[in-house]
Amino acid sequence: MSRYDIAIIGTGPGGLEAAITATIRNKKVILLGSKDLSQKLSRAHEIQNFLGFPAVKGEDLAKAFQGHLDQLGIGITDERVSAVYAMGDYFALQAGEEMIEATTVILATGVVQGKPLPGEEESLGHGVSYCATCDAALVRGKKVAVVGYSAKEEEEAAFLSEICPEVLYFPMYKEVGQLPQNVTILEEKVTALENQDGKMLVKTAEMGYPVEGVFVLRDAVAPGQLVPGLETEGAHVKVNRKMESNLPGLFACGDIVGTPYQYIKAAGEGNIAALSAVGYLDQLKRSAQNG
Amino acid sequence: MSRYDIAIIGTGPGGLEAAITATIRNKKVILLGSKDLSQKLSRAHEIQNFLGFPAVKGEDLAKAFQGHLDQLGIGITDERVSAVYAMGDYFALQAGEEMIEATTVILATGVVQGKPLPGEEESLGHGVSYCATCDAALVRGKKVAVVGYSAKEEEEAAFLSEICPEVLYFPMYKEVGQLPQNVTILEEKVTALENQDGKMLVKTAEMGYPVEGVFVLRDAVAPGQLVPGLETEGAHVKVNRKMESNLPGLFACGDIVGTPYQYIKAAGEGNIAALSAVGYLDQLKRSAQNG
Repeated sequence: MSRYDIAIIGTGPGGLEAAITATIRNKKVILLGSKDLSQKLSRAHEIQNFLGFPAVKGEDLAKAFQGHLDQLGIGITDERVSAVYAMGDYFALQAGEEMIEATTVILATGVVQGKPLPGEEESLGHGVSYCATCDAALVRGKKVAVVGYSAKEEEEAAFLSEICPEVLYFPMYKEVGQLPQNVTILEEKVTALENQDGKMLVKTAEMGYPVEGVFVLRDAVAPGQLVPGLETEGAHVKVNRKMESNLPGLFACGDIVGTPYQYIKAAGEGNIAALSAVGYLDQLKRSAQNG
Repeated sequence: MSRYDIAIIGTGPGGLEAAITATIRNKKVILLGSKDLSQKLSRAHEIQNFLGFPAVKGEDLAKAFQGHLDQLGIGITDERVSAVYAMGDYFALQAGEEMIEATTVILATGVVQGKPLPGEEESLGHGVSYCATCDAALVRGKKVAVVGYSAKEEEEAAFLSEICPEVLYFPMYKEVGQLPQNVTILEEKVTALENQDGKMLVKTAEMGYPVEGVFVLRDAVAPGQLVPGLETEGAHVKVNRKMESNLPGLFACGDIVGTPYQYIKAAGEGNIAALSAVGYLDQLKRSAQNG
């Protein structure tokens, strides 16, 4: 497997600017995220203060960003990264079923809105999963539940319905699309996930639903859960002004590093993070030459 | 005199984004700088990594920025700020001959390229001045020298030639334009400024030129000279991630706070600085209501 210089996770303005700057600096870059870039951005009604774009619609700004990627030939790998492991002199990223290696990582996955469900974190890896693709094998032939926080999770539910006889789908948003016959849509607010001797109970205000596995699928995963050992402050990654985290070679930018949650701020930080990663790579190279 | 909520000094991407964000947040803003925005920007051949503007010429990016200011009705006060004084609960800015008051200040004046001339700082206020408009009265009828670091300083030399019988002009750049008859253009590298009993000697590699006052005119003044009491680190203002300096109510952004010297990074910081200033103003207001 070939190793990337920089793996960038997230396709909001922070991740995009990081990818653009790193590409210009001739680094081997992989940009992981959504082909639609950022839903938050493309659904924004009007953005007033992204310098150079007066009163721009979110979708138009997203188009300008896409045009910039296209002009530099930057593609997006549309995979959800479920874990990032610091391996010493490189990082291993679990992206769907694949493992990706990169010397440095830039986290730009946005901020997690809201808290985990009661019982969610306790059962993570033991009945609760954040990644349908990764953990499909564990639930083959079983009854499962999906708690989906956005419409794109319907694809995950549909995928699970191919390998599981019954799928309960709890949409945490409005307007659910078409789903396969063996997917039951339950428009009830999930209040807790209970682990009962290895089986799971999805509790709603109305009742409890017993299943063998629960997939909780959000746009972003809390950074501490994504990267074991990463120092956080509440929902945010702790970084300095160079966008360095406590893990050497791991940088972060955008909403994930804190307020203000603003597009131009995220882009500016993406630029800093990319150049810090470039500096880190150059230093590694020099050390290797001298050693 | 009416007091501004936020005085923004500098019209590069940091200052412009700060002005845009502060204006959207309904603050009373004065933006001080150059009507041409940033010479560095408009002369840039091609910028690759300002997100949303693939491979853009500096002058075209500057036009997009100007369009954004126009759409929000933000004007530029074309005055050089020569000093900022912390007065307790507000700041006083020396802008040309005028004093401007503002509750908060955002410094976005860029970074000073190069070191002061030998002898420059020692004679500041005693033979050396950074502002022709402010100190014109002191040199009326006398022979003076101007060390100009960019073509726009020719206007200052021309202004001085109206009140001084003889002006020596030392251009620190190429291609000098037309100047009045009593301005002598000396294309020699200035190596030092010597104070001799209150008179100044401008030394070049070739010889020494005695004058009664020297104006050293750069695009940006070192931040510690501009704002007495401001904590700096070398050529940069020391700030935290909120862009707060050591002086409460004074924020900074862009090249002046450190590397990387990149347009999008400056813009992102301008956004943060403006929102930090807004937060500071809101807090002042609440304290006043509670007190």
